[in-house]
Amino acid sequence: MEETFVPFRGIKNDLRGRLMCYKQDWTSGFKAGFRILAPTTYIFFASAIPVISFGEQLERDTEGVLTAVQTLASTALCGIIHSIIGGQPLLILGVAEPTVIMYTFMFNFAKERADLGRNLFIAWSGWVCVWTALLLLMLSILGACSIINRFTRVAGELFGLLIAMLFMQQAIKGLVEEFRIPERENPKLVQFIPSWRFANGMFALVLSFGLLYTGLKSRKARSWRYGTGWLRSVIADYGVPLMVVVWTGVSYIPSGDVPKGIPRRLFSPNPWSPGAYENWTVIKDMLNVPIVYIIGAFIPATMIAVLYYFDHSVASQLAQQKEFNLRKPSSYHYDLLLLGFLTLLCGLIGIPPSNGVIPQSPMHTKSLATLKHQLLRNRLVATARTSMRKNASLGQMYGNMQEAYQQMQTPLIYQQSAAQGLKELKESTIQAASCTGNLNAPVDETLFDIEKEIDDLLPVEVKEQRLSNLLQAIMVGGCVAAMPFLKMIPTSVLWGYFAFMAIESLPGNQFWERILLLFTAPSRRYKVLEEYHATFVETVPFKTIAMFTIFQTIYLLICFGLTWVPIAGVMFPLMIMLLVPARQYILPKFFKGVHLQDLDAAEYEEAPALPFNLAAETQMGAGASYAGDAEILDEVITRSRGEFRHTNSSKITSSTSTPANDPLSMQSPRVRQSPRLSELRGERSPRIRGLPSPKTGESKLSNLGKSPLN
Amino acid sequence: MEETFVPFRGIKNDLRGRLMCYKQDWTSGFKAGFRILAPTTYIFFASAIPVISFGEQLERDTEGVLTAVQTLASTALCGIIHSIIGGQPLLILGVAEPTVIMYTFMFNFAKERADLGRNLFIAWSGWVCVWTALLLLMLSILGACSIINRFTRVAGELFGLLIAMLFMQQAIKGLVEEFRIPERENPKLVQFIPSWRFANGMFALVLSFGLLYTGLKSRKARSWRYGTGWLRSVIADYGVPLMVVVWTGVSYIPSGDVPKGIPRRLFSPNPWSPGAYENWTVIKDMLNVPIVYIIGAFIPATMIAVLYYFDHSVASQLAQQKEFNLRKPSSYHYDLLLLGFLTLLCGLIGIPPSNGVIPQSPMHTKSLATLKHQLLRNRLVATARTSMRKNASLGQMYGNMQEAYQQMQTPLIYQQSAAQGLKELKESTIQAASCTGNLNAPVDETLFDIEKEIDDLLPVEVKEQRLSNLLQAIMVGGCVAAMPFLKMIPTSVLWGYFAFMAIESLPGNQFWERILLLFTAPSRRYKVLEEYHATFVETVPFKTIAMFTIFQTIYLLICFGLTWVPIAGVMFPLMIMLLVPARQYILPKFFKGVHLQDLDAAEYEEAPALPFNLAAETQMGAGASYAGDAEILDEVITRSRGEFRHTNSSKITSSTSTPANDPLSMQSPRVRQSPRLSELRGERSPRIRGLPSPKTGESKLSNLGKSPLN
Repeated sequence: MEETFVPFRGIKNDLRGRLMCYKQDWTSGFKAGFRILAPTTYIFFASAIPVISFGEQLERDTEGVLTAVQTLASTALCGIIHSIIGGQPLLILGVAEPTVIMYTFMFNFAKERADLGRNLFIAWSGWVCVWTALLLLMLSILGACSIINRFTRVAGELFGLLIAMLFMQQAIKGLVEEFRIPERENPKLVQFIPSWRFANGMFALVLSFGLLYTGLKSRKARSWRYGTGWLRSVIADYGVPLMVVVWTGVSYIPSGDVPKGIPRRLFSPNPWSPGAYENWTVIKDMLNVPIVYIIGAFIPATMIAVLYYFDHSVASQLAQQKEFNLRKPSSYHYDLLLLGFLTLLCGLIGIPPSNGVIPQSPMHTKSLATLKHQLLRNRLVATARTSMRKNASLGQMYGNMQEAYQQMQTPLIYQQSAAQGLKELKESTIQAASCTGNLNAPVDETLFDIEKEIDDLLPVEVKEQRLSNLLQAIMVGGCVAAMPFLKMIPTSVLWGYFAFMAIESLPGNQFWERILLLFTAPSRRYKVLEEYHATFVETVPFKTIAMFTIFQTIYLLICFGLTWVPIAGVMFPLMIMLLVPARQYILPKFFKGVHLQDLDAAEYEEAPALPFNLAAETQMGAGASYAGDAEILDEVITRSRGEFRHTNSSKITSSTSTPANDPLSMQSPRVRQSPRLSELRGERSPRIRGLPSPKTGESKLSNLGKSPLN
Repeated sequence: MEETFVPFRGIKNDLRGRLMCYKQDWTSGFKAGFRILAPTTYIFFASAIPVISFGEQLERDTEGVLTAVQTLASTALCGIIHSIIGGQPLLILGVAEPTVIMYTFMFNFAKERADLGRNLFIAWSGWVCVWTALLLLMLSILGACSIINRFTRVAGELFGLLIAMLFMQQAIKGLVEEFRIPERENPKLVQFIPSWRFANGMFALVLSFGLLYTGLKSRKARSWRYGTGWLRSVIADYGVPLMVVVWTGVSYIPSGDVPKGIPRRLFSPNPWSPGAYENWTVIKDMLNVPIVYIIGAFIPATMIAVLYYFDHSVASQLAQQKEFNLRKPSSYHYDLLLLGFLTLLCGLIGIPPSNGVIPQSPMHTKSLATLKHQLLRNRLVATARTSMRKNASLGQMYGNMQEAYQQMQTPLIYQQSAAQGLKELKESTIQAASCTGNLNAPVDETLFDIEKEIDDLLPVEVKEQRLSNLLQAIMVGGCVAAMPFLKMIPTSVLWGYFAFMAIESLPGNQFWERILLLFTAPSRRYKVLEEYHATFVETVPFKTIAMFTIFQTIYLLICFGLTWVPIAGVMFPLMIMLLVPARQYILPKFFKGVHLQDLDAAEYEEAPALPFNLAAETQMGAGASYAGDAEILDEVITRSRGEFRHTNSSKITSSTSTPANDPLSMQSPRVRQSPRLSELRGERSPRIRGLPSPKTGESKLSNLGKSPLN
């Protein structure tokens, strides 16, 4: 993205790009069929549960003026509008914690002013929204999002980890609260005598850890050994919502002597109870706000505008990380413009505004990557099986699969890396074949496990469409009506879910992986390479990695500490934004450019691709040998950042290395090896099998049988 | 073992064999140094905790006549004697559940007889022990243990699983009890009002699941990525005892309002409290027992004798499974003889007798295998590192390691498979070297991870000695004195520990693995092969495996059901012994001999080794090819039962296959490929690494460079 500050240019570019794929955004979603419900439900829960919990918090803090009904309404309304006319449909909108903190502050301020008071609070906050909207529109029109590519990994991942910490903190706080008497309750009730409080706390521990453990386990169901593939899929897709239902069911098991208030459950008024409607007509009251407060509303508005600008953009950026190999364009400017209008709308109907949320947005993209992976896989496995039944040779089978793969590709101009996904599959099958015998004989399924092979080799692709976002937003809206059912969920299940979300957001976060690396025994650091693409482990000295990570950790802890400061806490995004100039001007003074690039590649300093030297590709080893042959493997290390390097070393490092002397892989000087889905999810490499990886053997054979240059 | 029923011959053979290695049994133990404490502590806990718990049960059931003090004393006394003058020092003795059931029955019988009553119960049970001892001595002298090799896997593993089920049942029962009012307590106490009972139950859930989860995790600490090797070792070795301490500590966290009785803790009288001594002088009372009851005591004695004969022999057998590659001889007859004397001793001092226990005995062997593995590994790694520092070539390094390995071997006549362990290591290092370059160049540690390689290649060997058994028995004796500290342990931690023991006893049990296989999706059955040696998956049709397993499962459930029948329950070992003739005479009518042999090899029907056909070893493939070469791999599937078969197929199956055309492996027509330790433990193969397994490549190279027959 070029840095242009010409008014409206950014918005125009975004619109042009997104309009081009708008129709496909819908057709693609509908084509996925009922499977789209998996990511939809997953994100719906991730979106609704925190919003309900923030709503409860807001209710306590605003003395019941705003409740979960309003936060749900805002999330649903903004979500529906954004999914239909928004730019980037991967972005999930919702009422976030910072908004709650800001509104609490504003309520406390208004309450103490005689000429505002509790009654005019919503009207006044309407004015704050008006100002915020104006500021956001201005920022968007002037192209403020052009600097988004200065928001490097270091800032985004730090923000992501901070949000994870806040979620975890909420989970722990919530659990501790279960042992205490809640503020708004009557402490004389039977469930608040010490014994029942203790019982309630212990029950809460059981429920929340139960949810957390089973939730995390169910996400890995696809790699279970047991059950049919169908069952495993369903559990992996719907396991977490299912577990919320199951543990809610468990919470009803104790009966008899146990009082009704144990375990504690969600508290929220039904939307049809009196008073829940007051806010909708706030526009009538807005002119009653004294002029000095209308102008004064500009001050909180600037803070909210900065917060939203950052939050919204980073959420969008994290949902569009390079590792996801997205094919459709981004839309930062236009989305910020829309956010302005949404904020205005929310202000005028008296509900707290929504903005792009973390970790839900990247979770959304990840779940859509899983969806696309499933769809591609099923199609390819079916093709391969058909070919086998027809006794096709390996070559024919590959041809058929290639064709099927192409049919699944989105025909878009933005498509850059298509047709590359299957190349590796071809290599691998040929290698497997050459290692076991013959290439032209009919393929036998006993030869290799197709499902597994295809699973391992498909690159990450994302089902980019609008349907899942729209559906989840509608479902969030449905929560308002389903409040009587939601109130059955124990709060402790909620805390378990918060912990689950915090943990789910960690894998793929390189900052987190580096923190773990610091605690990894030196002899086991190679394991990091096994698990995901982390070239920096090879190219950057450990001391530098450690320094960089410790710096980032201290920065994180400062930001986290800041959130505890009553009002300054809201401004922690400013602190994170400060990282952007720090990264650009200060860090290069302490770290070597090359290292910095490996740890945190910024687009403005990305290295040019190395020329691809064919002559250097194959070096036959000269060593005398016991086994009659020996050679030095050339390693071509492909990096997740898209560059292509190669080194000559005799070190066998990891599964990321591809033998370059394989004639098949010499197609482009700038090949981008895509990461695997499982690596993004932080799972162990699924490549691990009893079948010895035939790569080494194959490349040797090709050396013996063929010229390395053809 | 030959089936000989000549009186005393079995005992003489056993004594001769064990005397030959008696000195080494001690020196070897002391040579291991402080590391011997790891298996000792592990087994001490596994031995003491159930004995304490059974003691509590006995106390309830005998109205306080016998308590945990007596069960601990018996376990310690018998353990010490057995570890010093017993035959097989791997066997762990203890008071087991069946003994408790028998004693309960005997107490109920005696209590109701006017001329016996509560007072003469111990004296009468002394007579039962006398008769039992006589029967055991007779069985031993007449060579009843000769038929032990008819106790095939099917019976032993079924018994093992049954014991695991009983442990798990106890854990669940115990947890449920935590929600109820204990029988012997005053129900008016504050901790038994409904709210505190509920709180206690929930707290118990937290503590027991906490112990179970952390205990299981800590056992896998050696493969963690984090922390130093030293720390990981300590956690893996002492994690479970440590966790018992940690969770006991956690149980003390709630304070303030929480009454003292929550959570519930162990209940047992201190050994110095009045009345705890009554039993020791029972011999005085024995002549007061009416003659009719002295003779009548023969009836329960026969039951106990059969029970002990079976229990003791199977525990010993499970501790000496073939997979452990033991080097020292078994001692079934002599151990049964000793058990007779021990039973007599226990009877005369009025404590319940001990016998060989499951799962503690196999757990003991497994933990000693881990110890031996650690010792060997450390020595070899050190040797390899020294060689590297001296810039030795791979060949030299291997020589040094070979030498070091030989020094570690026990110089015994019974040693059969020594010197074979390192062969594979040599192959592997040479393969790794040939794949990366040269064999004669100095070895570089970056080339491969020595620790890992050695870890993966060392065969299972067991540190066979007497010290760990003696020490654990002494520690159990120490428990009698440490009763005030033991009483701090919450009962819920105990239940968690019971569940832990049940789960720990499962891996390596082929019956259990086959049950799991029934639930494994067909496409994932190959994963079973990855995880441990299970040739039957390849050689026996799935339907036959399923049939056999279902038969075994139904049999297991019948046995389990039988334990619920009040008095017949004690005889469940008889039911299991029935399996022996059933296996020999009935099963062959329903299953093919070959299959039965693969699923449950009985020595009396073991197949003769196939002649090793060198000419058939290498078959150069004829297929036309893309990569210039093709061949059909000969597969030599080595089986865990020690036979050696080979099949010609083009199917690549599992890591258990070794390319037979590797000239290095052609040394013996009856090579026994030893299982890895991790396979016995049920861990995933540690062989899995980024480094591609070079076996296939290497064997090809050797074909090209060398004659396959040299």
